[in-house]
Amino acid sequence: MKSNTPATPGLRVPAAELQAFVATLFARAGLRQADATVVAQALVWANLRGVDTHGVSRVAHYLEFIANGVINPARTLSVTVETLAVTVLDADRAAGPVAMQQATELAMAKARSAGLGLVMVRNTTHTGALGCYTQSLAQRGMLGLSICASNPMMAFHGARAAGVSTAPLSMAVPGAGAETVLLDMASSIVSFGQIMQAKRQNLPLAPGLALDAAGEPTTDSQVAKIPMPLGGPKGSGLSLMIEMFTSLTVGNPLIAEFFSGNPEGKKHRQNAWVLALDVFKFCPEPVFRADVARTVAALKALPASVEGADILMPGERGYREAALRGSGGIPLSGKLAGELAGLATRFELNPPWGGTE
Amino acid sequence: MKSNTPATPGLRVPAAELQAFVATLFARAGLRQADATVVAQALVWANLRGVDTHGVSRVAHYLEFIANGVINPARTLSVTVETLAVTVLDADRAAGPVAMQQATELAMAKARSAGLGLVMVRNTTHTGALGCYTQSLAQRGMLGLSICASNPMMAFHGARAAGVSTAPLSMAVPGAGAETVLLDMASSIVSFGQIMQAKRQNLPLAPGLALDAAGEPTTDSQVAKIPMPLGGPKGSGLSLMIEMFTSLTVGNPLIAEFFSGNPEGKKHRQNAWVLALDVFKFCPEPVFRADVARTVAALKALPASVEGADILMPGERGYREAALRGSGGIPLSGKLAGELAGLATRFELNPPWGGTE
Repeated sequence: MKSNTPATPGLRVPAAELQAFVATLFARAGLRQADATVVAQALVWANLRGVDTHGVSRVAHYLEFIANGVINPARTLSVTVETLAVTVLDADRAAGPVAMQQATELAMAKARSAGLGLVMVRNTTHTGALGCYTQSLAQRGMLGLSICASNPMMAFHGARAAGVSTAPLSMAVPGAGAETVLLDMASSIVSFGQIMQAKRQNLPLAPGLALDAAGEPTTDSQVAKIPMPLGGPKGSGLSLMIEMFTSLTVGNPLIAEFFSGNPEGKKHRQNAWVLALDVFKFCPEPVFRADVARTVAALKALPASVEGADILMPGERGYREAALRGSGGIPLSGKLAGELAGLATRFELNPPWGGTE
Repeated sequence: MKSNTPATPGLRVPAAELQAFVATLFARAGLRQADATVVAQALVWANLRGVDTHGVSRVAHYLEFIANGVINPARTLSVTVETLAVTVLDADRAAGPVAMQQATELAMAKARSAGLGLVMVRNTTHTGALGCYTQSLAQRGMLGLSICASNPMMAFHGARAAGVSTAPLSMAVPGAGAETVLLDMASSIVSFGQIMQAKRQNLPLAPGLALDAAGEPTTDSQVAKIPMPLGGPKGSGLSLMIEMFTSLTVGNPLIAEFFSGNPEGKKHRQNAWVLALDVFKFCPEPVFRADVARTVAALKALPASVEGADILMPGERGYREAALRGSGGIPLSGKLAGELAGLATRFELNPPWGGTE
């Protein structure tokens, strides 16, 4: 067995190797092999696109969820309500990507029969990046939309405290060719990841991005704790509506339970929507794809804010990054590589970036 | 006949009288009586809620649309594609509220049968405030969501020019009682109305809100012309996805045609979605309503940013304003009252605020 030497800074790991390694970690921690693979795919998908906050940096967190029972490895996904266009999928606290991937397939099946299909995912755990699922729909000729609610961590407009989550919204459409147009945004003005990065680099934050623990606005990244909503009442309003659409519709309220005084209400869980539209039922495929191309071309032809700079479409930065990282590997910081190596040791595994034989 | 004396500054007109007056104006301008009533209702609905930018200040604009053929008074609304969950409604350039009200009814009917119903409204004109339709759904026990695309007028992130519209998004749910929770937001960081107001009052704009005609960022409200997107790439990305979801799905692209060089492509038209979920099929009504109340109560109990201030839910300001204006009347500025009085003269009508007998 290899010894886990301190990870090299600037390490790059081929995506397939990283994914196989992470899947094995999850399987050894108790997930079924197929579930472990789905979760590893979802995390590495985010890394490939440069969204490292939703990539393998979450592995330790997910393993903790498995250890403390937040994620249920013995999950049984079950359909609890079904109509012509809607399926309620009880996730039974499955690892999020497992429930979301199943929801994506079910939404697509409904869309094939009803034109539009919605899966309301009840009681899942961290979904990972929603773009993973909407992109999968768009790659198969569907319009995809997904939203997700979790526990309060973002300021509610007018309050000096966290009241809602940084609830994300993702929308995707098929592009002219293989690529998709893919929006994946949080309802916060800044992500936790960005606050953490400023903290590590000891850089100040711009005004208006975060509150400290006491609810005071701060630019000091060392004490910043609560991200502010995007555009004040718009971002916190959007997040609240996402809670109402995803959680209250399936009788699994998060905000109300979080503040109920019941310690159970503080436990991690999420609810989500995956919506698919079988778009080529409504517009011939060549027309739709050509119109996406024309729209993108028109926007790219606008004068750029910075001379010579490209005007990027939603998801284009991630698409470019995926091309680079797909061939050049996923960069891991020394800290993250060391953390993963430590987890590997615990599960008697070798990380793929090796050490000495 | 009354003479149209100059309007009183600080005038307040009862909503029912204002609505009847505006409906008569539209009918005399060529709309069918029933259509005229629907349009007047939608505009006065916005005024009641304090959204004066989408209220009777639009009357002159709509009359111009009727006169120049943008609005088609002889419209035939027709269903061009239908699936179990989706209806494509060709609006035939109807006055927007006429098409949107019909779409609301059709979406609700689909939701009753399929659980979820989507109406894609093709080729309508200015929809008015989307909250009018989503609230109507929520008041009848549905979840409502509506989005709408129009011609480019907002900056696209990374460009120094208008590339997308200030595409709005509205979401509504039934509340604990008769009131609803109602979000109605644009994808821009500031509305045209706010820019215009600053201009009239000769006040500067905060940095980052607008560009001038040449695409330079400006704080001078006198030259501000292009609103910036909410949160940079988030707002312009959301607007672009709304164009793709509402316009490209029905083969009626707005952005691509606007920039095509064909003068027809600059003409006003809109496409929209109205989505309804028959929520009580998925969660018992008393549970849902109680959870909305619990969620709202939890947020209202948070410490306020400004001591003693209320923490408001989406739509609550409008709800309060509607109570005030419902009893006290709709305030009209002297300028607007004068404009409406002028239009009344043209159509041989008296405005309800009268003059001398």
